[in-house]
Formats: sequence, structure tokens, C-alpha cells
Amino acid sequence: MLDDSFHVFDTTLRDGAQREGINLTVSDKLAIAKLLDEFGVGFIEGGWPGANPKDTEFFQRARTELPLKHAQLTAFGSTRRAGTRAAEDPQVLALRDSGAPVVTLVAKSDDRHVELALRTTLDENLAMIADTVTFLREQGQRVFVDCEHFFDGYRHNPGYALDVVRTAAEAGASVVVLCDTNGGMLPSDVFQIVTEVRQATGARLGIHAQDDTGCAVANTLAAVEAGATHVQCTANGYGERVGNANLFSVVPALVLKRGRDVLPEGCLREMTRVSQAIAEIANIAPATHQPYVGISAFAHKAGLHASAIKVDPDLYQHIDPAQVGNDMRMLVSDMAGRASVELKAKELGVDLSGDRETLGRIVTRVKDMELAGYSFEAADASLELLLREEIGQPVRYFEVESWRAISERRPDGSNASEATVKLYVKGERVIATGEGNGPVNALDRALRSALESVYPDLATMELTDYKVRILEGTSGTDAVTRVLIESTDGRDEWTTVGVGENVIDASWIALEQALTYGLLRRGYTQG
Amino acid sequence: MLDDSFHVFDTTLRDGAQREGINLTVSDKLAIAKLLDEFGVGFIEGGWPGANPKDTEFFQRARTELPLKHAQLTAFGSTRRAGTRAAEDPQVLALRDSGAPVVTLVAKSDDRHVELALRTTLDENLAMIADTVTFLREQGQRVFVDCEHFFDGYRHNPGYALDVVRTAAEAGASVVVLCDTNGGMLPSDVFQIVTEVRQATGARLGIHAQDDTGCAVANTLAAVEAGATHVQCTANGYGERVGNANLFSVVPALVLKRGRDVLPEGCLREMTRVSQAIAEIANIAPATHQPYVGISAFAHKAGLHASAIKVDPDLYQHIDPAQVGNDMRMLVSDMAGRASVELKAKELGVDLSGDRETLGRIVTRVKDMELAGYSFEAADASLELLLREEIGQPVRYFEVESWRAISERRPDGSNASEATVKLYVKGERVIATGEGNGPVNALDRALRSALESVYPDLATMELTDYKVRILEGTSGTDAVTRVLIESTDGRDEWTTVGVGENVIDASWIALEQALTYGLLRRGYTQG
Repeated sequence: MLDDSFHVFDTTLRDGAQREGINLTVSDKLAIAKLLDEFGVGFIEGGWPGANPKDTEFFQRARTELPLKHAQLTAFGSTRRAGTRAAEDPQVLALRDSGAPVVTLVAKSDDRHVELALRTTLDENLAMIADTVTFLREQGQRVFVDCEHFFDGYRHNPGYALDVVRTAAEAGASVVVLCDTNGGMLPSDVFQIVTEVRQATGARLGIHAQDDTGCAVANTLAAVEAGATHVQCTANGYGERVGNANLFSVVPALVLKRGRDVLPEGCLREMTRVSQAIAEIANIAPATHQPYVGISAFAHKAGLHASAIKVDPDLYQHIDPAQVGNDMRMLVSDMAGRASVELKAKELGVDLSGDRETLGRIVTRVKDMELAGYSFEAADASLELLLREEIGQPVRYFEVESWRAISERRPDGSNASEATVKLYVKGERVIATGEGNGPVNALDRALRSALESVYPDLATMELTDYKVRILEGTSGTDAVTRVLIESTDGRDEWTTVGVGENVIDASWIALEQALTYGLLRRGYTQG
Repeated sequence: MLDDSFHVFDTTLRDGAQREGINLTVSDKLAIAKLLDEFGVGFIEGGWPGANPKDTEFFQRARTELPLKHAQLTAFGSTRRAGTRAAEDPQVLALRDSGAPVVTLVAKSDDRHVELALRTTLDENLAMIADTVTFLREQGQRVFVDCEHFFDGYRHNPGYALDVVRTAAEAGASVVVLCDTNGGMLPSDVFQIVTEVRQATGARLGIHAQDDTGCAVANTLAAVEAGATHVQCTANGYGERVGNANLFSVVPALVLKRGRDVLPEGCLREMTRVSQAIAEIANIAPATHQPYVGISAFAHKAGLHASAIKVDPDLYQHIDPAQVGNDMRMLVSDMAGRASVELKAKELGVDLSGDRETLGRIVTRVKDMELAGYSFEAADASLELLLREEIGQPVRYFEVESWRAISERRPDGSNASEATVKLYVKGERVIATGEGNGPVNALDRALRSALESVYPDLATMELTDYKVRILEGTSGTDAVTRVLIESTDGRDEWTTVGVGENVIDASWIALEQALTYGLLRRGYTQG
């Protein structure tokens, strides 16, 4: 466990979720929080309880469904309304009732915003801060105060901005966070202002930087150089407008470039995996050119330097990619994949380390499939079925002859979907039809109906998530479709992937594998 | 015309083209050079003449096909080979023969790279630099020297790195460019080293920063603060691995944040257009969240702030987006309030400010639809159709009776999709069938086939992107599906959204609106 001297504070679930295109369910938020905890952040801001039902539910479910190893859950909220008492403000009470050990309170620190947006007096704003911090501290919660629009406010009226910092600190906020809410600062501005605020107030300071100048990471690092000991970031830099300071750029810079132990031992190596998994959950394509974690981040074009890179790779890369869980990749003769395939085979009890030929064949097939749109990063079950096939142990519980799915809107406005599957199982030809609320659901039901008398345990399995991504979307519906299906049998979870020229075809492939893998786990003999 | 005191140097066509996935033809390069010149950069590095036929042809064609208003064309090349004379080195002669008025010579400045990659002595490397600069200067060309791996080299052996800078400057290089080739520096490192080099050598310095720490823009600005007067950047930050310093972030920071006139008058307003056009030519989707120029860069979401934004937008954005040719955009999100709908309506040419009742009704309907899974923040066209309906101007070009889509896998393993649409248009009942590579594609074709005789302009419209999101994915394929469809008619682009209990149903809704909105833009009268 790290001490309290430096805070890595993640706000993906609150500020990051403001990114255009992100829409997280409560389950998504719980899954992301789990990943952030594995990465070792100290604080996870989960949302604004009371402001919307989804965030309220998140904090409720987090109590039982989110055992955290490293992080403390943090609730976000606002100072009390003008002219009320903190103890009577429902929004403040929802923060108390969230059960979060830490609360981040947003406070206005730009006098213009106090007057224009809050429509109250400068003095009342200070009272609102003092009262709310004091009240929540009395409830036993730790409080951080986010000073919204701080940098713009400080430039416009430094005296008032400093009063806000002092008020928050004196009321018991353990960190006062200076926010570049509009994101217009450059690093030397941030360095200077943080230095001045620190000298003038002596408060413990944090930084929250938006990326509108493309300098959010640098602004965060500049604040740390000026003495801030609390950094607010988001996974992959997700956030409103351009985004926020990228957690996965700020943290490795501090650890690897400045030698600061801001993460628990061993966690930095999880970074690439965590980054990609969060992107999948947010249903945003992982940024291939993202620093440290992108698939291109350590990709070298072979040629002039190829032989020199082989002799001493450190002369051609700023860090060892293994430190962040990434790989060096040569764009012409690509060695990537071999190690992970070998490792995966070993997990399955197959030692491929002595069998260069099989290993090479599998890596080639995986790469060809990835070129065609497959992604095994999140689809272990599909990778396992592929490996078993390549080592001469293919898994087949049934052979499909054909299928057909029909969806229609009827003249009365109602929708209907129906699917028929024809297959062979244990030597018998079976035809089954299922209805569903969509074509994939209908196919799923038809397939189960065809198989359930032979494999009754299918009844214990269900699909828990279904994700669709259109790849190379430059020709409309002609694009290739990738589908990920998550399944569970109540004990375990597994994910399968299908790629096809349309969503039904891709779904079918993932569906067939989902059931096949489930039957394999149940130990059924093949037929 | 600007004077020579500060150089904006673009290397998109040389270093930017190293980005994984970029493959530019000579015509592409000429088109990009023209755009960069319109943006007003001082130097355009066109490539390495002699190193490959494409770059040689580029310099040949540029003489007649590339009239430049602002920029000077620059050829990139290497110092002479060890143990030869510059005047006899074919690679150096190709630089002379390129006809470019300026040459950028890459030189080794890290002693380890001299020995490992060049395999020559440290003294010979200095002689190679001096000879090559002297020779090209004698041919009447201006010379800049790029010191490769400078920062790593300076840390390892500062004396030798400084010798390289002095040698280049003394031989007549007008700028010595310090390159962070591996991209591992942070801004305070760059500031300190550039300061030291400037004090030690007195040479005119430039900066070339790779983005491996996510700090290339900040590193470039730090070098300028330390006295560098020449910045090497690429359009949209394209480049090897993570990329290079983004021209479209560095330049607006210098102009708008530091008041430096580094572009010709009026050019900055071209930035968003130039950025997007270059992305199109490079065949890379424009980065929606890119600082300054991205479609999300000035997109505001929070309903809370919308009323204040109306009063004073400058309190909520770091610059006026018009300064860089971009626009403020209001996103209608789950926090949608009256003010943001009102503002959106005004954008669409509808004044609702006096009509509280209509406004309230629309806000309620938008919120209800968002609860059901709709998201209008990226679907302006759907929102406009909704607004028009609510103000009593519904848009109807056809009335759908029913549709049906069939997808199947046949026993021979092939896939087929077919759809039938029944609708009324201009009083006629029409039945049409389409085939496609998937059910949505088949529905699209059936719908167009039913409508094209009445609305021939449909032929100009096509779907350009198709996104699927499964919402509340906790009950497998029972989840609600949201589909976004982007369309274009060659002039404009618009996005529509559909939500349904299955992907076909949701796609249909978005598809119907996509065509309806396209017909509206074409000014067809309704039927």
C-alpha cells in the first residue's frame, strides 16, 4: 500500500464519461473501476450520487460488488446551494449517503462564474465552500475541493481565487485541486500559477487539466514540478471536448521519467492491458497511436536502423515497452504475438516452446485473422478454440448445415424476428426454429432448441454482453463487422469473437463459439 | 510575407508519412503541400530526393505544379558517407539537383549512434557534417541541420553533442535543429537542455519533437521559451510510432496564447479546413477529439452550463473557435436543459426563445427518448427532424407500411441477405426488394429502389459510417440497440440515430431518417 504523500486520482467514470460518444451502464462503470483498481490508482471518482439515478445505483452496487485492493471510491458533488444549510441540501446529503469514504466537491473559484452561473455573491460562495466541507468532514468523510475554472479565475482576480483555496483548506479539505476547466493553459503558465498559489496559501494542491491545447499531460507534470501532489486524470484521456490529462501518460512519466513511486509495485506492467480493456468497455476503438499503450507506440519501420535496433534496442526507444506491458514491434518482420501465443498454449497445458513450426503457424494464422478484423485481446475463449484446432484437438459438438434469420416490421407497427437452424448433432439432423426480439436473439434460441436435448447444461449458460464494432467504416454498411459476446454459466465468464460481412454473420460465429466453449468447460464428450 | 526571424517548418510529407497506415502518392503529396502553403507555413519538407523514386518525382513535378505563396520547398537528406567527398556522393548530389532552395541534412549527434549505426569515428562524423554543409552552401542552397537523437546524446555525452552543433553552425547551417528522435523527453528537460545549448554555442536553434510521452507540443513550446526560433511539426501530428509535434496545436498556441505572429495574416482561420482536408487525402479519419480542429473541440455538453454559455461563451471556451475556423457546438445530452435545446434550435434556424411551452415539450420528449436509449449529441439530423415535428412542420417524404429482412447461411457456406419494403410515396403504393451483403445494406437498397424514381437525387447520397452500440448489456441479446448512421451527399454530412429492440429495427429508423434528411436538404417538396 502506498502512503498518502502523492495521489493518483482517476475521474474516468465522472469527467471521462463526459466524452462525446461514451455512454456507460452501471455494469460498465463497475468493470472499469475494477480495472483502474488493478492498475493501482489511489482514488476512483465514481460519479455524482443523487444527480442521476445511474450514479446513485453505482455507489449502491459498489458497496457489495466492488472489492477494491488499492483505490478508495470517491463521490463527486457540488457545494451547497446559496442560501441554504449544507445539512439540509439534498444534494449534499446524497454525498454523505453514498457511503464513499472520500468526496470531491466542485467549487467556483472564478468570480465571473460565481456571479454569472451561480448567481450569488462572492462572500456567499466562500460560505458555501466552508459550510459544505465542514459538514462532510463532520460526517466522517475526507474532502477534496475541485476549484473549477481556477486558472482563468486566478488571471482575472487572483485575490478571490486565493480566498477560495484558503477557505477550502481552512475548512478541512485535505487537497485543493486547481482545475484548468477550459483547458487553455500552457505548461509554463501552470508552473508559475501553481508555484504562486503554493507560496501564497501553503495548501496541499492538486491539478486537473483539460486537453484543449494538447498539453494536459505536460500541464499536469508542470504542476507536479511546482509542488502539486495530487493528479486528476482519466483513462486514455477521455473527457469533454478534447479530453482530460491521460492517466496512462501522466503515470508512466512520473514513474519512469521522474522516479516517483506513485503506483503499487508491479502495477505499471498492467497498463497496456487495462487501457485496451477500458476502451473495449467504453466501446471506443483503442487509439493505435496513443503514447506508451498504443499498438504503434513501439512500432519501428524496418530498414536503415533494423540491424542497429537488434544490437541495442534501447538506443531506439525511450523506455523498455515491457515496463508498461507493451511490445516492440517491427513493421516488416513482426515478432509480436509469439510470446503471448506460447503463454496461452502453456495455460492450456500445451508446451509449444520446443515446436517453432506450430508456433509460427499459429502466429501467422492469428495475424491473418487480425488483419481480417479479429481481435483476440478480449476473446480468450475464441483463441483457445483456435489453439486446440491448430494442435490437432479441434472442438466440435455439432456441425451446422445452414441458418436463416428473418426480421420484419409488420403493417400494424409491431416487430418480429424468427430464425431457423439446421445442424447435425451426434449423427442426427436437427431442424429448430426460435423466435426472439431480434435476429441474433432468435438465432441463439433456435440453436439452443436444436441442442438442448443432447446437452441439457446449455440451460445454465446465458449471454451477458454483446458488443458490435464496425471496422473500416468508409463505405457505409459494406464495412466488416466484429462482434464480441460475453457468456456465463454462473461460475465462469468467457468471451468469443466473430467477424463477418454483416452483423448477423459475425454474431453467428461468436454465438456458435460461445456455446461450444461452454460445452467444453462442462466436459461434454464431442459428437 | 513574414521575415526570417521565426520558422514554422512542416515535415508531414517526410517524417509524417512514416506514420503506420499512411501511403501517399506523388499527387497526394502535391495536394498536401498546396494545403500547407495555404495555411502559411514557411517551409515544406517534401521528402528525400534520390532515396526513392517517388520523392525524386515529387521534387520534379513541384517545380511546375506547385506554385507556393508562402512556403519554401525543402529537401531532406543525409550527410555524406564516411570516407568520401561530399561532391562525389550521389545522395548529396541528388539534394543539389532537387532544385529545392533549402536542404535539411540529418546528422548523428549521439556518439553511440555514430559508432553503432554509422560505424565511423566521432571525428569523421564531424567532418561529414562540415563537408556536406559547406558543399551545399557553395551550390547556393540554404542548409538546416537536424541533429538526430540530440537529447539522448546530450545526456550521454554533452561535449560531443555540442561539438556537432558548433560544427554545423560554423560550416554555415543557418539553423541547427535539436531532435528528440525517440520522443522520451518531458518539457522541463527540453527547456533546460535547449537553454544550455544556446548558451554554450550561440547557434540559432530549432526543435523537432516526437510524441512518445504525449508531450511533443509542450516540448516544442518549451524549446521556443528557451530560445529556439524554428519548430518542426507535422499536420495532425502524423509520424512514426506515436507521431510528431502537431502543427495544428503548436501554431495556435504560439499565435493565440503567446501573441507571436508566426503565420501570415488571416491564415489561422484556415486551420480546421486544412487539417480535415489533409486527413482526407491521407485517408485517415479526422481525429474528432483533436485540439482546436476536432469536431468535438468546442462541443459543450453540460445542460447546467448552457444558460451561462448563452450569456458569455468566452467564459466556457479557451479561445473563440472562429479564430481557427472551427465552431462551437451544443450537445444535447442526458443533462439537456431548456437552454441547450433553445440554442440548438437557433443553430437550426428556429427561434424558440418566446415559446416556453413548445420548448418544455421538446425538452421532455428529448429526455424521454434519451432514457429509452437515444443520443442526439452526435445526431444533429435526427434532432432537427424532431424539432421540426414539434413546431408543426413534420418532414414526411414517404409512409412505410412494412419491411422484412432475411439473412441466411446456405448449406454451401455462402451468406445472403435480402430485404423487401412496402411503402406509399406521392399516393402510390410501392413494393421493392433489395439484395445486400447484410440485412441493413439490403434494406438500404430496397428503400432506395422504392424511392428513386420519385426522388432521383437519392443517387448522390451514400452512407459513410455505421456505428452500433448495445445499451444496458446485462441481459445478452435482449439489450436495446442504438445505431448511428453518417451520410453524405458529397457536399454535406449528417448523422441520424435509431434505437430499437434489435439491430435491424434500430438501423431501419436511422436509415429512414438519413434519407429523409437528405431529401430535405435537397429541397424536395413533401409527398
